Amino acid sequence: MSVTTEAKPSTATIGQYLLDRLHALGVEHIFGVPGDYILQFDKLIENHQINFINATRENTAGYMADAYARLRGLGVACITYGVGINITNAVAQGYVENSPFVVISGTASTEEFASCRYLHHMFGSHKGQLRDTTQMDIFQKMTVAQELLDNPLTAQTQIDRALDLCLTYKKPVYFEIPRNQVEQTIALAPAASVTRLDEDHEALAEVLEEVSEFLKRSERPVIWVGHEIQRHQLSGPILQFAEKYRIPIVSSILGKTTISEYHPLYMGIYQGVMSIEEVKEYVESADAIFVLGVALNEIETGMQTANLNAKQKVLASSERIKVNHHHYPRVSMHALVNGLASLDLNLRFRSDYPAYIDRRLPPFKAVNDKKTSVQRLFECLQGFLRAEHLIVCDFGDSLFGCSDLILEQDNFLSNPYFATLGFGIPAAIGAAQAVPQKRVVGVVGDGAFQMTCTELSTAVRYGLDPIIILLNNHGYATERPILEGTYNDILNWSYSKIPQILGGGKGHYARTEEEMEHAFQQAFQERGTFHLIEVELEQDDLSPALHRFSQAIKKSSS
Amino acid sequence: MSVTTEAKPSTATIGQYLLDRLHALGVEHIFGVPGDYILQFDKLIENHQINFINATRENTAGYMADAYARLRGLGVACITYGVGINITNAVAQGYVENSPFVVISGTASTEEFASCRYLHHMFGSHKGQLRDTTQMDIFQKMTVAQELLDNPLTAQTQIDRALDLCLTYKKPVYFEIPRNQVEQTIALAPAASVTRLDEDHEALAEVLEEVSEFLKRSERPVIWVGHEIQRHQLSGPILQFAEKYRIPIVSSILGKTTISEYHPLYMGIYQGVMSIEEVKEYVESADAIFVLGVALNEIETGMQTANLNAKQKVLASSERIKVNHHHYPRVSMHALVNGLASLDLNLRFRSDYPAYIDRRLPPFKAVNDKKTSVQRLFECLQGFLRAEHLIVCDFGDSLFGCSDLILEQDNFLSNPYFATLGFGIPAAIGAAQAVPQKRVVGVVGDGAFQMTCTELSTAVRYGLDPIIILLNNHGYATERPILEGTYNDILNWSYSKIPQILGGGKGHYARTEEEMEHAFQQAFQERGTFHLIEVELEQDDLSPALHRFSQAIKKSSS
Repeated sequence: MSVTTEAKPSTATIGQYLLDRLHALGVEHIFGVPGDYILQFDKLIENHQINFINATRENTAGYMADAYARLRGLGVACITYGVGINITNAVAQGYVENSPFVVISGTASTEEFASCRYLHHMFGSHKGQLRDTTQMDIFQKMTVAQELLDNPLTAQTQIDRALDLCLTYKKPVYFEIPRNQVEQTIALAPAASVTRLDEDHEALAEVLEEVSEFLKRSERPVIWVGHEIQRHQLSGPILQFAEKYRIPIVSSILGKTTISEYHPLYMGIYQGVMSIEEVKEYVESADAIFVLGVALNEIETGMQTANLNAKQKVLASSERIKVNHHHYPRVSMHALVNGLASLDLNLRFRSDYPAYIDRRLPPFKAVNDKKTSVQRLFECLQGFLRAEHLIVCDFGDSLFGCSDLILEQDNFLSNPYFATLGFGIPAAIGAAQAVPQKRVVGVVGDGAFQMTCTELSTAVRYGLDPIIILLNNHGYATERPILEGTYNDILNWSYSKIPQILGGGKGHYARTEEEMEHAFQQAFQERGTFHLIEVELEQDDLSPALHRFSQAIKKSSS
Repeated sequence: MSVTTEAKPSTATIGQYLLDRLHALGVEHIFGVPGDYILQFDKLIENHQINFINATRENTAGYMADAYARLRGLGVACITYGVGINITNAVAQGYVENSPFVVISGTASTEEFASCRYLHHMFGSHKGQLRDTTQMDIFQKMTVAQELLDNPLTAQTQIDRALDLCLTYKKPVYFEIPRNQVEQTIALAPAASVTRLDEDHEALAEVLEEVSEFLKRSERPVIWVGHEIQRHQLSGPILQFAEKYRIPIVSSILGKTTISEYHPLYMGIYQGVMSIEEVKEYVESADAIFVLGVALNEIETGMQTANLNAKQKVLASSERIKVNHHHYPRVSMHALVNGLASLDLNLRFRSDYPAYIDRRLPPFKAVNDKKTSVQRLFECLQGFLRAEHLIVCDFGDSLFGCSDLILEQDNFLSNPYFATLGFGIPAAIGAAQAVPQKRVVGVVGDGAFQMTCTELSTAVRYGLDPIIILLNNHGYATERPILEGTYNDILNWSYSKIPQILGGGKGHYARTEEEMEHAFQQAFQERGTFHLIEVELEQDDLSPALHRFSQAIKKSSS
């Protein structure tokens, strides 16, 4: 029965409440494409503190919101009904790669559905129903909550609950708003708390006791950290745990830079046969392994070549906690990781593992008139990277090449699991909007570039300044080693002239090492405008990592 | 027990059989984007008579296949699993606008699913199942058949049945092929005939008798013809029926050019308040109306302003046959239309309806240095159009402006119902591939252009030569009259320089009437290369039809 001194507003419109909640959770930009069913909501954004960022189309709006969410903890994309399903690829990717973003779709009003069986942008006749359920049915497969905001009595609870699920599971959620409901008034109730299954403290104590016991008998433990640790902001406690006992850390590829790659305990990326030899050897000869927040898919495991031979294994993800062969269903990843950090054991492991210094790329010195290669490109790039540079890469050799770069914490963003080609450019732009204090460096191939390059228009429109490095290897290089054919070819463009079309940005073409270094110099020293650097490569020039990957994937598909 | 002189092959692989069937049904091109789960099938296409056409991404491959299907009766798009759901928008559009195209997606093999719970491009863990069912569940909502071709014993039947449904309902179907099944051998059986519900001849006789009776009492009948008549190739019998009794014909907007607009019985497009006055007046004062193959959605009905006052109404679509208030569930549209054509009544109606000549746009004469307008653009364009020109237009003022053009039969392709922005360019390219004897003229706005312009790359790669007319009205013009805001603005590009990027095609920029006419002249007289003509327009310059549409949509959404 406390007395509040400041009166809070007792009503809001549904649209206003949703925007206020998103803003309170840190959202300052919403990415979208307008359309008649969502215009009322777009107008509301225009009058709100949140900024509307126009994308050139829907799926790229999705990738931008995804990148924003991975970097800031929450992102939003806004679409119109039906034609907006262009965004599904981005949503599915956010779902399997744990990106907490919100999709808001407008739809027709109940009155419109009642007055006409066939409305534009709808998936067919809604017949007996007063709505088209198709889009919600589709999003049900790739989001953790779907709410139709058509009732002022329940809208607040629906919004609160869905956003809570988005932040709890770090996966997309979906709102559908009939356009006549955006301005409907709701009477605000005190925010309801969501009831959850309590942590089981006895179970937690048991798993920590078990871990303590085997740690005491261990001589060579290792921590394999994955992207879920980044999403749930658990890097801190993991470092506490690792530093206290001097346990080396390796990362999954999707989890790269969850821990700074300059940290003295960090060894490199573990990815089965695709790992560098020292990392592979260390992990596979460890006697205890902590697999924390790693998505154990075929990519993360190097086409299932990961060999976790350790006698003692702790597996923790948002889905399950497992020690060797038994599960702890009532312990959360969050509780376990914090529990590990608070253990107080009298232990200190030997530090004879390879230190980060061995993984550093050699310093780059351009050779006069020499045509550059993929390997030299990444050696050159490494020399320009500082703590303020955020690498955003597309799938393919962009990813594999980037995996060898050594980067600070939270300076890497990629999509190696759902592996949508064309993620790189829109994600780089979403990232530039999300963390303006950093300089974003997007790395993409020519196949990916042709899919989503129009989004560079958005960089010009909003004054964003990513550096885009285009690896022009003339085709779908990842596929050539699997099964070659003319379908892997791509028409060559004069990519570096694109800024002339957009009326902004700067283009560079580099064939030799010198030209490449010069272009990098210009791009890295100038902020305020995007730079597009096309690096001309040989068609069959693969990074060492892609070469290993291609061998692995070829084997698995034959 | 006949003796065949030529031995047919008794076996084929699943992939080969599918390609052979498609080829036998007239498919000469498959549009697609490669990816590891579909590479085996792509390779098979490369070795087949059918040509593989690389799209820059998946949804545009879908629009190209859609256009190809509308013009040739069957189209095919080919994608990899998961990331391929980028194509859903195109499939949904094909579903509601009746386009018979086939989507073929590769997927992982049963063995791969068995060996790993989490595979790349999948929507999550498939857990207890040996496949990921998500994509098929999604396609179930927008196709009339979905077949997983994972069994050589049933593959032939599955393929035959799905293709039959595609051609019967003129809607998309979906095949999913595990990559290790493409080369599986099947023992070919004689093609099984599909059993269908027989036509009810008594019911047909009854409806024709009923129609004959009211026709005899009618003084002012009219036929409103829609796109389903084009899809089912029933224009012939409808003209027979109309010509025999001199019944005037109007068209729906989606059905435009199902009947030649130069036919003396053709009056124009009927679309409620959006119709030209003479057409509206005639239709709404008719005493008998035949609504044949029209999708009665809000767009076709001019935002539900169609007033069908006729005392006698016959409604025929692929879904139902209805006379006034009663249905004939056992009569098909096909049977009814052919029945109407074969009627032999001693009737001849008066011909005092407005003839096509009244709808012709005035001859264009460029005014010196005068900035052009939307209206003048279409007047100018009309002067260049001949029987060999096929107009493909995007949604927005492109559609509304084009609706006033007078065109020969089958010379118009649009998407006014699902209304995906960005359909125009890929559809123009798919159309150019489908009917090389025609010259395709694509008409798109700047918003649509930015969504899918990268597909012009495909025109260059395959030597296709559409003329693309870009109405640059600086934003989403259709939305401005509904609810104006900065979200309706678009960054202006130097569009006419795009051929410099692609290394092919010719660009034109036109601001004045003279420049526009000159650009049209150059484009229309040169085949073998695409021409992109940017026409600079005022932001608030709407075609008369869009002005009427905006008023209608504004009214319905307020």
